[in-house]
Amino acid sequence: MSNRYAIILAAGQGTRMKSKLYKVLHQVCGKPMIRHVVDEASQTQFSKIYVIVGHGADAVKACIGTDAECLLQEQQLGTAHAVRQAAERLAGLDGTTVVLYGDTPLITHETIEKLIDFQEQNHAAAAVLTARIGDPSGYGRIIRDGSGNLAKIVEDKDATPEEKKVLEINTGIYSFDNRKLFSLLGKVENNNAQGEYYLPDVIGLLVQASERVLAYQTEHFEETVGVNDRLQLASAEKYMRTRVNRHHMRQGVTLIDPESTYLSAECTIGADTVIYPGTVISGQTHIGGGCTIGPHTRIRNCEIGEETVVEQSVLEDSWVGSHVQIGPFAHIRPLSKIHDQAKIGNFVEVKKSEIGEGSKASHLTYLGDAVLGKDVNMGCGTITVNYDGKNKFTTHIGDGAFIGCNANLVAPVTIGDGAFVAAGSTITESVNADALAIARSRQVNKENYALKLNYRTNK
Amino acid sequence: MSNRYAIILAAGQGTRMKSKLYKVLHQVCGKPMIRHVVDEASQTQFSKIYVIVGHGADAVKACIGTDAECLLQEQQLGTAHAVRQAAERLAGLDGTTVVLYGDTPLITHETIEKLIDFQEQNHAAAAVLTARIGDPSGYGRIIRDGSGNLAKIVEDKDATPEEKKVLEINTGIYSFDNRKLFSLLGKVENNNAQGEYYLPDVIGLLVQASERVLAYQTEHFEETVGVNDRLQLASAEKYMRTRVNRHHMRQGVTLIDPESTYLSAECTIGADTVIYPGTVISGQTHIGGGCTIGPHTRIRNCEIGEETVVEQSVLEDSWVGSHVQIGPFAHIRPLSKIHDQAKIGNFVEVKKSEIGEGSKASHLTYLGDAVLGKDVNMGCGTITVNYDGKNKFTTHIGDGAFIGCNANLVAPVTIGDGAFVAAGSTITESVNADALAIARSRQVNKENYALKLNYRTNK
Amino acid sequence: MSNRYAIILAAGQGTRMKSKLYKVLHQVCGKPMIRHVVDEASQTQFSKIYVIVGHGADAVKACIGTDAECLLQEQQLGTAHAVRQAAERLAGLDGTTVVLYGDTPLITHETIEKLIDFQEQNHAAAAVLTARIGDPSGYGRIIRDGSGNLAKIVEDKDATPEEKKVLEINTGIYSFDNRKLFSLLGKVENNNAQGEYYLPDVIGLLVQASERVLAYQTEHFEETVGVNDRLQLASAEKYMRTRVNRHHMRQGVTLIDPESTYLSAECTIGADTVIYPGTVISGQTHIGGGCTIGPHTRIRNCEIGEETVVEQSVLEDSWVGSHVQIGPFAHIRPLSKIHDQAKIGNFVEVKKSEIGEGSKASHLTYLGDAVLGKDVNMGCGTITVNYDGKNKFTTHIGDGAFIGCNANLVAPVTIGDGAFVAAGSTITESVNADALAIARSRQVNKENYALKLNYRTNK
Repeated sequence: MSNRYAIILAAGQGTRMKSKLYKVLHQVCGKPMIRHVVDEASQTQFSKIYVIVGHGADAVKACIGTDAECLLQEQQLGTAHAVRQAAERLAGLDGTTVVLYGDTPLITHETIEKLIDFQEQNHAAAAVLTARIGDPSGYGRIIRDGSGNLAKIVEDKDATPEEKKVLEINTGIYSFDNRKLFSLLGKVENNNAQGEYYLPDVIGLLVQASERVLAYQTEHFEETVGVNDRLQLASAEKYMRTRVNRHHMRQGVTLIDPESTYLSAECTIGADTVIYPGTVISGQTHIGGGCTIGPHTRIRNCEIGEETVVEQSVLEDSWVGSHVQIGPFAHIRPLSKIHDQAKIGNFVEVKKSEIGEGSKASHLTYLGDAVLGKDVNMGCGTITVNYDGKNKFTTHIGDGAFIGCNANLVAPVTIGDGAFVAAGSTITESVNADALAIARSRQVNKENYALKLNYRTNK
Repeated sequence: MSNRYAIILAAGQGTRMKSKLYKVLHQVCGKPMIRHVVDEASQTQFSKIYVIVGHGADAVKACIGTDAECLLQEQQLGTAHAVRQAAERLAGLDGTTVVLYGDTPLITHETIEKLIDFQEQNHAAAAVLTARIGDPSGYGRIIRDGSGNLAKIVEDKDATPEEKKVLEINTGIYSFDNRKLFSLLGKVENNNAQGEYYLPDVIGLLVQASERVLAYQTEHFEETVGVNDRLQLASAEKYMRTRVNRHHMRQGVTLIDPESTYLSAECTIGADTVIYPGTVISGQTHIGGGCTIGPHTRIRNCEIGEETVVEQSVLEDSWVGSHVQIGPFAHIRPLSKIHDQAKIGNFVEVKKSEIGEGSKASHLTYLGDAVLGKDVNMGCGTITVNYDGKNKFTTHIGDGAFIGCNANLVAPVTIGDGAFVAAGSTITESVNADALAIARSRQVNKENYALKLNYRTNK
Repeated sequence: MSNRYAIILAAGQGTRMKSKLYKVLHQVCGKPMIRHVVDEASQTQFSKIYVIVGHGADAVKACIGTDAECLLQEQQLGTAHAVRQAAERLAGLDGTTVVLYGDTPLITHETIEKLIDFQEQNHAAAAVLTARIGDPSGYGRIIRDGSGNLAKIVEDKDATPEEKKVLEINTGIYSFDNRKLFSLLGKVENNNAQGEYYLPDVIGLLVQASERVLAYQTEHFEETVGVNDRLQLASAEKYMRTRVNRHHMRQGVTLIDPESTYLSAECTIGADTVIYPGTVISGQTHIGGGCTIGPHTRIRNCEIGEETVVEQSVLEDSWVGSHVQIGPFAHIRPLSKIHDQAKIGNFVEVKKSEIGEGSKASHLTYLGDAVLGKDVNMGCGTITVNYDGKNKFTTHIGDGAFIGCNANLVAPVTIGDGAFVAAGSTITESVNADALAIARSRQVNKENYALKLNYRTNK
């Protein structure tokens, strides 16, 4: 196989986005558009990927990292000019060069490969990725010659009435014989209204030079649609969402309403897991089989075992075992570890804590910087007091301990195995295993005193 | 009217579901697919419904209970073979037999009845349920003779180019003269690639025997689509959701966004109730008129009165009166009873408790195993301490009692009518009517001591 | 420009809504249908807007206020009869009168203006708003004469087969020469099956009188669709939602899923704000740029600054600054003011309180009738005890104060700057600046006593 190169154009500002953020950095399904394109290109066998950057060059470079080489286009003088920025790297080399765009996040490596294979196998100087669409207005039309080769690309504004009827359009994605591309790039002129150097002109020059130019028609026009404003961004998001959700459903995941389920492309989900609507799963999240997730749950960068239930809750950067029950209305904050069979109930926050197997915090509880053993029972309203205004401290609670309702455990403090803390106690000293700790006042009843308060008259 | 019988084929495993669960047990709108079909069939006047079970026979039988008779097809040798499992029950009987499928959950009794009526009224030996669709590829085509009767069914792979253009297809649902069906079933052969006995062959045998066979074309093709994978399951769910939601809207319920509203077919909802998006109402839930429900609310098996408001909350297996206000972020757990005019506010959990008329638990409260009278005011952070690690106990609170913030009521305990519990008290002994109970320490202020703690330097 | 008048018909009951509420008062995107029409009409240069009311006249009048003059149609005898109710005000005046409907909430002032301009510029006696649609069945067809003028409107039931094929239909919206309209209104007869006076008959009378009548065909048929039942109400809601969301996206707002995002037409949102699904923003809400809102968040009548994050929370009638962090699971109730850099975390309720810059209430806290200075730290489980059963009192907390976990601040009470309240304290007296306040019992540990409780055997 010959050498293959990709050039991704990503220098534009994208004024129609009305954004401080550079266009290609806007996200689709939680990932910047330019990264979608680079990641798909990375799945193709390219010897090298170049990204042409301009507006927001530093931010775009930071987003790409070492996954491609960025080349700066200082002035944006058109697509041919952009591609020419790679001349120093590529001119004169044998091989194939495909031109992609940082604002077409839906393109797949399958389509890229089909385009290149089509060009190479037919020994053509170039192949244009085309599509047949219902309403071609605004697009450049593909005019083929008698043998089906590409005769020319006519811009919409220059098209004759007859040409306007052609439904096959230019997607703007090309595969070129690299040597021929760079030998002709310099001949592209800018004598047009915008004073720009246009890449499609290379196609014209190739045809003039009697080179063979082909049109490869894809059935997946949607992959090639560019994003220029927030409406198109929302459309791309929807299309990508559908693609990702179909993938998960094919793996055996039940999505009650795929249109209202928001999964990242990176996450993995086991078979027979059921996901209810309004669920947003992002980042590197891995969920086992047979779980029930949602509705209205947000999970980011979590590892979750099997047969676990998470309802109407938020989980971030944490590890959750199997047969765990979380929610509704629970919040698992980063660096938590919740072992099998544990239960985190309503209005419970867990932060940077470890919850042992079978332990329960069923209601109105805060576990922060806490390490709980197995089968601990945190009563309702219990709080690990981990912050004194200066530092954070750890609470240790041993296996089988029972913490009474509304108790405060003022860290640093250790509650021994099987210890029992009475309801309403503020615990400032450690409690030995099997000991009972209590810190509360004796109850005094004042008969008929409530009548004096007279508060019921207000009802 | 002649005797009518239904045979529902439900023996397949459904490997494309990629599931441990047998195909027909997968749920659509909260109900297993096979139950949808059995329930619709039960609305038709069938003398008897048979379900042919195979893979997961026991689980499928358990799901069907006594609503139909299950017949075991030990080996899955094709649809004709499946129907033959009912021969012992049906062969030789007069009447009409319709063949349905456990994986077409959207079929309605209206369509079943129209098919049977059409066959019976025209004194035909059989009627095939057909539909006219835009893209018939993959489906068996319906070839009619000059008089409109069915001449043959041609499988897609066997169709001539001319036959392939036919848009009327076989849905696979049939109505048969029962006696003729069973007399011909034995003649179906399995000399095909799969070595299976196919039910459509009976149609061919009937035509050969010069019996009259008709095609009844339904306008509701969608009802007949089978579910073979999770994508089709999601499609069926969406179709059923639309059907159920349209029903409720026609009854006078406002759905702000029917596409994001998830109602069970079993629930009833009064006129002028408004349901906000993201709401999931399941099971035997009955909601009165003029209520406001949602957004993002889950209600399962509840009875709710009139003009009640439930916002962003979860309610399960409970009874709620009229003019009640619940949420946002409340959780009503099973066996609760919340009387008229009560208020259950944010971050409040109610479990197996009765809340009297006009009583309020407005914030951060847990009511478990509690019985509250009328006009009780539960302060913020109040907790009924119902569990001592061994047993659950009941808390009784009388009419008009006032429970101060962050108080613990350690059950078993009784707070009398009009009693007042001071904020921050842990109450372990009962309080008489009109008494005040207090259990807390005197406040000590240490001037300038906070400076020593030096905690502000950390800011 | 001549005088222009609008007459909006809004007298119908709307029985198909199955509602106690009069039809035109049903809401679309949070605003009664009749108000949508009046508000759009108000953007056109009308000298006067009349609303013809009948069923529920008082309620409709109350909804319209002083934005239009309501005229009572005591008996509903047809659309021509309804328009005639304005005769006392309009008969004999020069100018143009457009007839609109209270149950077509999607009509825009642009379309109204185009209709009127078209009529006036062509010096016609009337112009009918028409549309070309795919399935015209049920609608009156527009029959044009050779020169393109309107020859007649044929009702569906009266149409010849040839006329039935016409795809241009009557939307029911008209612009009339006012003088001619009222001179002919009296000649409309009611000799039809319903015994009603129909407004389209005026068109027929004008044509008979050889007046020039035009048809103005709009491309926005959807704007003219009436709402007669809840299904159509849901469709109108969806259409309006799409319109409003597109507007916000064009302003530079990212909507992850516009189909599940519910914004009011009145709200404003700054560029680069990202809104996650399931978010409902209603009323006069103004959100700055760069914010992150949602998922599953409800905001009503709030002012929010820049770069603020609100996740899975409910906010009502409050003011929130910039760089504030709210949620998940927070509830900001009316009349709250949350200054820059503040944090309101999970399970926190704020009611009628002011939260100073940089102050934090991170978990399980209730702030009611409280005034917090800057950099206050409210510990987990802290409660401002603002209600004694009779009255509400205020809590003041000074800059940099630290309130320990599960503390109660019993209002009225003042905590001075930099004061420190120990965890578990119930504070009933004010605390000076820099003082430490404590109100709790000493902890007692009883060794091995938990063994006697024997509670672990229950596990």
